Parts: sequence; C-alpha cells; structure tokens
Amino acid sequence: MEKIILDCDPGHDDAIAILLAAGNPNIELLGITTVAGNQTLPKVTRNALAICAAAGIEVPVAAGASVPLVTPQVVAEDIHGDTGLDGPVLPEPTFELDPRHAVDFIIETVMSHEPKTVHLVPVGPLTNIALAMRKEPAIIDRVKSVILMGGSYTRGNSTVCAEFNIYVDPEAAEAVFRGAWDVTMVGLDLTHQALATAELQDRVRAIGGDLAQFVLDIWGFVGSAYKKVYEFDYPPVHDAVCVAALADPQLLTCAKAFVTVELHGQWTKGMTVANFADVPGMHHGSSEGLPMGAATTDVAMKLDWDRFADLVVDSISALAASKGQ
Amino acid sequence: MEKIILDCDPGHDDAIAILLAAGNPNIELLGITTVAGNQTLPKVTRNALAICAAAGIEVPVAAGASVPLVTPQVVAEDIHGDTGLDGPVLPEPTFELDPRHAVDFIIETVMSHEPKTVHLVPVGPLTNIALAMRKEPAIIDRVKSVILMGGSYTRGNSTVCAEFNIYVDPEAAEAVFRGAWDVTMVGLDLTHQALATAELQDRVRAIGGDLAQFVLDIWGFVGSAYKKVYEFDYPPVHDAVCVAALADPQLLTCAKAFVTVELHGQWTKGMTVANFADVPGMHHGSSEGLPMGAATTDVAMKLDWDRFADLVVDSISALAASKGQ
Amino acid sequence: MEKIILDCDPGHDDAIAILLAAGNPNIELLGITTVAGNQTLPKVTRNALAICAAAGIEVPVAAGASVPLVTPQVVAEDIHGDTGLDGPVLPEPTFELDPRHAVDFIIETVMSHEPKTVHLVPVGPLTNIALAMRKEPAIIDRVKSVILMGGSYTRGNSTVCAEFNIYVDPEAAEAVFRGAWDVTMVGLDLTHQALATAELQDRVRAIGGDLAQFVLDIWGFVGSAYKKVYEFDYPPVHDAVCVAALADPQLLTCAKAFVTVELHGQWTKGMTVANFADVPGMHHGSSEGLPMGAATTDVAMKLDWDRFADLVVDSISALAASKGQ
Amino acid sequence: MEKIILDCDPGHDDAIAILLAAGNPNIELLGITTVAGNQTLPKVTRNALAICAAAGIEVPVAAGASVPLVTPQVVAEDIHGDTGLDGPVLPEPTFELDPRHAVDFIIETVMSHEPKTVHLVPVGPLTNIALAMRKEPAIIDRVKSVILMGGSYTRGNSTVCAEFNIYVDPEAAEAVFRGAWDVTMVGLDLTHQALATAELQDRVRAIGGDLAQFVLDIWGFVGSAYKKVYEFDYPPVHDAVCVAALADPQLLTCAKAFVTVELHGQWTKGMTVANFADVPGMHHGSSEGLPMGAATTDVAMKLDWDRFADLVVDSISALAASKGQ
Repeated sequence: MEKIILDCDPGHDDAIAILLAAGNPNIELLGITTVAGNQTLPKVTRNALAICAAAGIEVPVAAGASVPLVTPQVVAEDIHGDTGLDGPVLPEPTFELDPRHAVDFIIETVMSHEPKTVHLVPVGPLTNIALAMRKEPAIIDRVKSVILMGGSYTRGNSTVCAEFNIYVDPEAAEAVFRGAWDVTMVGLDLTHQALATAELQDRVRAIGGDLAQFVLDIWGFVGSAYKKVYEFDYPPVHDAVCVAALADPQLLTCAKAFVTVELHGQWTKGMTVANFADVPGMHHGSSEGLPMGAATTDVAMKLDWDRFADLVVDSISALAASKGQ
Repeated sequence: MEKIILDCDPGHDDAIAILLAAGNPNIELLGITTVAGNQTLPKVTRNALAICAAAGIEVPVAAGASVPLVTPQVVAEDIHGDTGLDGPVLPEPTFELDPRHAVDFIIETVMSHEPKTVHLVPVGPLTNIALAMRKEPAIIDRVKSVILMGGSYTRGNSTVCAEFNIYVDPEAAEAVFRGAWDVTMVGLDLTHQALATAELQDRVRAIGGDLAQFVLDIWGFVGSAYKKVYEFDYPPVHDAVCVAALADPQLLTCAKAFVTVELHGQWTKGMTVANFADVPGMHHGSSEGLPMGAATTDVAMKLDWDRFADLVVDSISALAASKGQ
Repeated sequence: MEKIILDCDPGHDDAIAILLAAGNPNIELLGITTVAGNQTLPKVTRNALAICAAAGIEVPVAAGASVPLVTPQVVAEDIHGDTGLDGPVLPEPTFELDPRHAVDFIIETVMSHEPKTVHLVPVGPLTNIALAMRKEPAIIDRVKSVILMGGSYTRGNSTVCAEFNIYVDPEAAEAVFRGAWDVTMVGLDLTHQALATAELQDRVRAIGGDLAQFVLDIWGFVGSAYKKVYEFDYPPVHDAVCVAALADPQLLTCAKAFVTVELHGQWTKGMTVANFADVPGMHHGSSEGLPMGAATTDVAMKLDWDRFADLVVDSISALAASKGQ
Repeated sequence: MEKIILDCDPGHDDAIAILLAAGNPNIELLGITTVAGNQTLPKVTRNALAICAAAGIEVPVAAGASVPLVTPQVVAEDIHGDTGLDGPVLPEPTFELDPRHAVDFIIETVMSHEPKTVHLVPVGPLTNIALAMRKEPAIIDRVKSVILMGGSYTRGNSTVCAEFNIYVDPEAAEAVFRGAWDVTMVGLDLTHQALATAELQDRVRAIGGDLAQFVLDIWGFVGSAYKKVYEFDYPPVHDAVCVAALADPQLLTCAKAFVTVELHGQWTKGMTVANFADVPGMHHGSSEGLPMGAATTDVAMKLDWDRFADLVVDSISALAASKGQ
C-alpha cells in the first residue's frame, strides 16, 4: 500500500490519474494538491473537485501556486480547452477545499507521517514541490520518492525540445531534479506509449455507467485535440502512468541517468537533458567537457501497456462499483 | 553528374566519403578541402593526401581552418586515434597540397563555375564554409546546394544533445544554417542507419586488393572505437552518406524543417534544433512562444541501406580496378 | 511612521539596519525575518537574535529560507567571517524565535494590516520575498513598497557584474523585480557612498557604552575585510540605507528604470540590468532590439551622506539611552 | 614611427581617426580596411575613399566583411545617418579600391613586414580581424599589437550593457580578445572623455580651409545626433583615440584586466566583462566561482585630453598644409 500526494493540474490525463489513485487498492491517496498548469489555478482546482464529485472520491484537496517561480505563465488551452477539462459534463463539487495552501498541505502531510512512507506524485508543473522543498527542506529526506510526469530524453511537445510541465516552470523542475531524493522521471518517451487506444476505450465503455462515460468524454475531447495538434491517433494518458507505476512495480522499465533542466538556452529552455549511465548507444564521446552529475534519476524507458490498461480499467470499475453501492 | 567540393577532416568515415566521391560515376570531385575536426589540421590534411595516395585519386587538396571561429578546439581522438586515421597503413602522399587556402579554393571554384552547378559537401566542422560565406557572400547564391553531415534531431554524440561536427564549431554551423542556400542536414538519426555491417564488410573483402584492405582496416579500428565508446555493433559511415545522396537521389527520405543551432545553452550548446513542418507526431503545441523560422532545411530521416551499400562497394571496386590498370 | 518588515541575513551592515529600524522614531519595526545569505540560515538567525539582545530590541524574529530557489548556495565568509558577524562579542539571545516560517510571517503580517501600510525591506538574498509572493500573490498588491538592498547599474562585487544579494538568488530577485509593486533598488552605486568613515565612527564612539562599542567592533572587522578584499578605506553600510531611506524621504535621489536580472549569461548571471528612462548620458541607441519593459523601478543614484550619518548616530543613541533606562 | 592598418567603418569618428593616422608624423598608415558597422559595407567603403579624397590621402583601401560572423547585421543610422557620414559634403574618390579583400590585405601586409612591426587598429566591428586570424593564425604572433575601439567596463551604448562595435559582432570580438596577442581595449569609459568640445572645435576652425570645415561639418552632424540620442553636450571622437594612443604613448593610462565578451546573456549579449587585476575598488569577493583568465588586456582608463586635442589639431593642420602645397 503506497501512500501518495497527487499534485496535479486537471487536465484530462490528470483526471485519469486521480481515478487510478482513488480506485487502485495498492494506493492510498492522502490528498490532491493543485497547481496552475494546463489551465489557471481556479480552473484546475474546480476541475479537481468536479472529478472527485464525478467519481465519488473524498480526500483533501488543497490549492497551490497560481504562477511559476520565475517564468511567465503559459497554459495548454489548445489541448485541454477553456475550462482545462473540456468534454465531459462537470458536476458540482460535493465538498470544500482544504483550508491549507498546497505547499503547507504537502509539508504537514509528509512531516506527520513516518519517514519514507509518502510518495510525491507531481503530474503538473513543479511549482508546488519546489516551494515546499524550499520552505521546509526536511521533506527532502523524509519522502519515500518523487515520481513525476514531465520531460523527455529526445524531443518535447511545447517546444521542439521542452515538454509542457517542465517548460512551464523550468526553474522549479531543476530544483526538484537537484533534490537529494529518489526521483523517477516519466517523460514523453514513455507516456507516448500510454495511449488510450480503441481497445482501452472499448473496455472502459464495457464498464458502463456515468463514470465510464465521464472517462470516454475526456478521451473524446483530448483525442480530437491530440489528433489536431500532434497528429496522434489516440491521446496519451500521461499523468496516470505515475500513479500506475506505484500501483504495479513491474509496469515500467527504467534506466539511471543524470537529469538536469536546461535553463539558459535560446531554443532549448525547459528541456530535460538526460545523461544515461549504462544504455547502449546512448553513451557520449570524451570530447564533451560538461561536468555531468551522478546518474541518480530513474528515467522510464518502456511501458507494459497491457498492465497499464488493466490498471486503468480496474480502477474505473472499482470506483463505479463503489459509487453504485 | 554532380560537381562537388568535399570539405572534410579525415577521419575514418571521411575516408569512405572521399572514395565514394572519387569512385562514383555520377560525382565529379572538384577538390578536397580540409578542416580541423576529428584531429588537428596538419593530421587531417596529411590523411587526406594519404587517402588519395592509397586510392590513386588526383584532385586538388587545399588545407583550411585550424581552429573554430570562436569556440576552443576539441578533437575526437577517442574515435579516430592519435593520427586521426588510426588503423590502416598510411602511404606517403603522391602530390603536393594546392597552394590556396581552402576558403579561397572554395570561393574561386564556386565563382569560376556556372551558377548553381557546384555542391558544397562539408562533412567536418563548418569553419571553412562559414569563413568562405563571410569572405565572399556571393557564393551563397551561386552554389547548387550544401549537403552536410552534422547535427541530429533527437540526441547527440559529443554531448547528450550535440553532434560532434556542430559541437566543435556551433557558431560556424549556425551561419551555414542561416544562409540563403539549399541545405540538407544528414545528422546522426540518419547516419546511425548507415552502418558498416558484417555484410558490407564481407562485400568489400570480396573485392580484394590493397584498397579493399585499406577500407577494412579503417572499419576495423573505428568499429572497435564505436564498440567501446558507444556500444555500437558496427561503425556508422557518417560522412559517406552526403556524397552517396548526391550520387543517388533516391537514397534518402527527407523532411522539411527549420533548423537552428543552440548557441547559448548550459547543457545544449551545439545542439541542432529541428522544427519539422509536416511530420506526424513532431508538431508542437501553441504554448511555445519561440519565433521559429521557415522550414527550409531538408533533414534526412530515412536511409535506403541497400542502395548505400551498393554505392560504397561499387566505388571501391571502381577505384581498385582503375588503380590496377 | 512607516511600518516595515526587515528581511535580512546579518551580517555586519544588516546589524546597523536592525539598529536603525529599531531606534528611529519614524520606523515601526513589525518584525525581522532571516534568510541564508552572508552566512547559513542558523548563523544569521542566531546573529539576528544576538543583535536584538545587544540593543535591547524586542520584535518577532522569524527564520526563513536556508537555500536559494534554484542556484546552489554561496555565502560571504570573506567579508562577514565564519559566524557571519565576526568582530563583536555576541550576547546570548533574550527571547525565542517566532514559531512561524518567515514566509508565513511576511504573508500574515502584510495581510493582517491595512492595505498599503507595510513596507518590505529585504537586505539579503530575495528568497523569502519570492517564496512569499508565490505562495500568496495577494501580498503584491497589498504592500506599500519594497525597498531592497541589491544590484548595481555599473559593476558588481561578487563577480565583475553581479552584486552579492542578487548573485546568490538571481531567480528570486527577478521574480521580485517583475512583481507589480513599487520597488526601490538600493544598489552598490549608492551604498558605496554610504561609508562608515572615520568621522562617523568617531561620532558613534562619542556616544559611549556597550552598544556603541558593539557597532565599532562591527565596523572594525568588516572594515578590515573591505580593506583586504576590495581595497576600500572604509566599509560601506549597505543595508542600513534602505531603512534610512524610509526614515527620511530626502535621503536618496532616485531615477526611474526598467530593472531586470540577467539569468542566462556565462559571465553576467545575477547582474541587474537597469535601463534608465531619463538620465542624460544613459540613453541607448536605436540598434538594440531588446524589448525593454517600462521604467517602473526607483533606482537610488545619490546619497545625502550627512543625513545618513545623522540617522545612524541618532538611532544608536536612542537605543543606548533606552537600554540605559 | 608606428606602422598601422586601420580597420574601420566610417563613420564620423572613424574619419578623424583616418586624418590622425595620415597626418601624424609618428604613424605610418599602411592601409585602410573597411567593415560593415556604422553603415553597410558599400557605404562605409565609399566614405573611406571620400575621406581620403577630402584630405589628400593616398594609401591602399581594401573592402572587407559585409556581415558579422554569426549575429544578424545592425547599423547605427541614428548616429551616423543614412550615408554613414551625414553632414559634410563628400568628394568623389580620387583612386580605386585595392583589389584584395581586406582579410587578405591584412594577412599579406602583416606577413610581409618584419615580425612585431605592424599594429592592427580596428575601430569598427571586429569581423575582418577575426576572419584574418582564423584564415591565417600566423598573424597572431606576428603583429605588434591590436589596439581596438570597443567595449566598456561599466555600461554600453547600443544596449544597457553592450557597446556598438562589440554588440554588432560579439563572436568576432571574443575571438580577438582570446587571441594570444597584445590587445588594448579603448572602450566607452575612455572615449567618453575624448569629446570634441567647443574648445577643440574652435581650434580646428582656426586652422581654416576645406579640410577643417569638413571636420567641423562632421562634428556638427554627429554632435546633434549625440545630443538627441544620448544627451551629450559634445560628440565623443571614439575611434581617433586608438590612433592617437600609438602616436603618443603617454596619452592613456591603462590597467590590466581579463576581458571577455558575454555571448550568452539575454540582456547582456555583447557586453565586455573586464576583471581588473589591480585596481582598488574593482576587486571581487571569493564567492564568485567564475574561472577568470589572466589579466592580459590593457584597458584604457584615463585620457590626457590636452594631448589628445593637440594630436587632432596638429594632424588636421599637417594634412591641410600638405594639401595646400
């Protein structure tokens, strides 16, 4: 049973991550924190509450940072629409926001649990996590791990080189990658394997009921957006992979790398630069001159899609059943 | 019949490029210019003369720039050895260097031929080409095309992000990519498809004679280096692809992109950033904010290996036969 | 009567700033917050409490950030010594730290006072201020002004181009300069006019008593350090100027500029770039191409040293007298 | 008698530099080379010939680079007008351009004279010098010195941080500063002391004749431009100082510094960063972490204006007298 705080900016794939976190029996969802990213903070916070309402989830939801640390704000309206969760009908929230700021919720939750028992699962820009580790550095040693959705070791999606979550707040991301904690990077190279294919959509359709329809409406909207913007046949379910990886340790094949965020490039700002320690074909010559750090980050390389699909379907089924009771 | 000036830094794969340029009936090799890169200028210039001697080639060879425009010099001794062409026995040169500087050789050759008849084929750092276009801007409009070996649209080989030829002189490369001429980029994504496999080595062995052995010795040394440094099973024949592509227009599948060189990153300096105009899955979201230029560079994406192998084998056979007469 | 929160990293000149804030009748010191800078957080926090003890000051003291937002930590041991306040004998603290984090102290204090009544006076790295404005953006509109010690419009002191406070946390500084609040920059060009000359030291000596000696011991140590490191005849009292400027609106002559922090240079990281709107000789040609923002920051240009000296002497006298009672 | 090649982009102050080089008895002007800068190459080249015609000067004039090494071209039309030398009536050229490219003229002239006898005096962007040192590295050891007008150790004039000549081609400038030759930097801090005051203008007026009027017309136009753009009372005669310094070794007081050009900043690109070895008040603390190089560049700090004025007046008088014969 892995305890997690899900830090997110729902967001279509964030919604699936929430469902997985709440519906999977191996995950204990301690709370949801929100951060500006796919849309503005008020929108993504409202969406988080609406997703909880749609799925019958009751956990603390705390709102966090509304702008990045340094970089001017950008949102992903082209993918997630004006509301940040266009597509499904969004129900009214059924409970109030936690009164605490997300940063304090994270700090207090981590510090009040036993050491090395709480995972941070940030699937949006890393502003909240960076603020929390700077306000209370003691959390760095105390969390069990950070498993984040963001970055890439080849190409980006916001720019040629940068993935959206890192691009939005590259300084926060660099702070997180430099932290002395266990970090797993689930980047685009991995999440572009985590597609909501026709097969997966059929299996969700077969569950039936409002929640399944809610999920299908999510994939309907974001699928069209991905088709239009990126020419993908099916939408990736990026954020859900981080939760799924904690639910099933065999889901991902990872490789160790030194990962750092390019903060200073003209064309490459927000790119995650991953120097792998031991991947054939990914070594580098001796001519470089860049003092790379130790390869301490686990970079997700390969997804077991069948296991992923099972986890998604099972969690939606479980929540639907629980709601039906 | 395509007229070319081959600007190179031999270098193992440069040697094969020279053989292809001299041995292929569709290519007229107007001259060879040398530039510091894989090794220092004196070494690569001596190697160029030695390759000509080994293969019975007689064309003007002019020495060029010994250091990059701005960036401090680096060489690739880990791949090409102390001489820059470790492995084969290097014969004594059979003719003298052209008295002209490579920059003047390029300018005078381009300006003395009919407009749009001469291709520049730079397969080393782009220092000579940048110096020539700055000294005589009229060549920009007059060359038929520039087809260069360098860069990558995913990952590098000198650093995580940068390919060697671009990394060594990124400012020169940026000048070349910004020039108003037709540029084809043959980068690592392509040349890592151009391997000197066991099959290709066997076919060269079957030719027999000194020149075939010279080529096998080249691949023997650089194959071991690639195995050790990059864990490749066979060595790529990077530079030869540019010549081969002019000899056979069906060799490469290309896509149009805006290509620029990152000059300012901490970790990404020397990276080629390629923004493709029309490749599914390689589009970018609307959140970027980077004013990309027009997609005018042809980026090589896919190699027809069989055609490539035929061109290599045929050119070596032709030179061997010619030498035997 | 100006209400202020003094955010500092004592630090020799910080000590004088604290004395001025506590001893000047026009200043109401709501609290002191500490931040890693001249020395580590535990050291500067202990020093803040010791200064209060030495001067008989009783205000809330809250500890803040121990590391910068993104950049690795540096301290100024060459100037401030191992303790951060080498020189004087440091008394034991006479009261406990406020239990709140500096960031929360700042937010709560600003939000609980009437709008536009509280000044933030940061005289160390701007980490706490940046964290506070990101955690609670509402403070930006609510503070009366930010008057900070940091930066320069000519040359730096930590590097050729960068002043220490900005250099230590350039990302935090950029966040503060970009905030939509009134900012006054008191940089090196100004504070190098605020020297603790022999005349000023004589006047303090004439006050007599422990507190005057405490101040003289401060200037004795830091004066030697400035002599050795910078070849200054007398030590600047940098941080005290910000407090003095609020105590006496006629102290400084300012000019409006767009001020931004260079975050990306190889040699210039942490430099404050000040584009003046209306200073003869400081205009720029039309060839620049940099989209400068509006000139909204007040940059301190000229100090009335006599007024400054009076403020310093008077505040020490007042505190000494008060202590004597 | 100092032999010089004057590399310039006339340009108003360039014109005075040419007159000084031709009219001073201690200077032997081997030739004038032109480079795009204050205006385009055709304009500045025509102006160089016109100045020679106006002053009766006959030396080789060779045209050079029309665009910077890497950076897109900018010109200084706001200061020098549409022709690059607005103001005076420009006479028709009286002789032809040297057929050689400026780069070859520089190389051949330096290499054909005894070692350490020829000074390079670049007073425009450093494109020609960088091209020459890259095409023929042997000149680096052979020239006597490089004395350049460019840069600043405080603030710029094209941008907040960058002086025009360096800003226009920062990569070329960095190549020149990194060269292993003696470099003197005459930057804005110095040349803003070299004003064509009312006194100097009166003395030139007193010479009488066409050439004196030519000079007065130059200062008339550029004086108005400087008044308008920079709010200077009198125009600086930047470029002439480099020639004057060779004519009179007591003209300048210099200090040794490591000088490098910031190539990577967002706001600081083209800034000269000067780390002085031994100037009180210009040292830096130990917290920097930047690996500065050795202080080998002579940076001009203080001008003896009276000597400068004498040199200007005397050279114009001499040329006027010579012309009158």
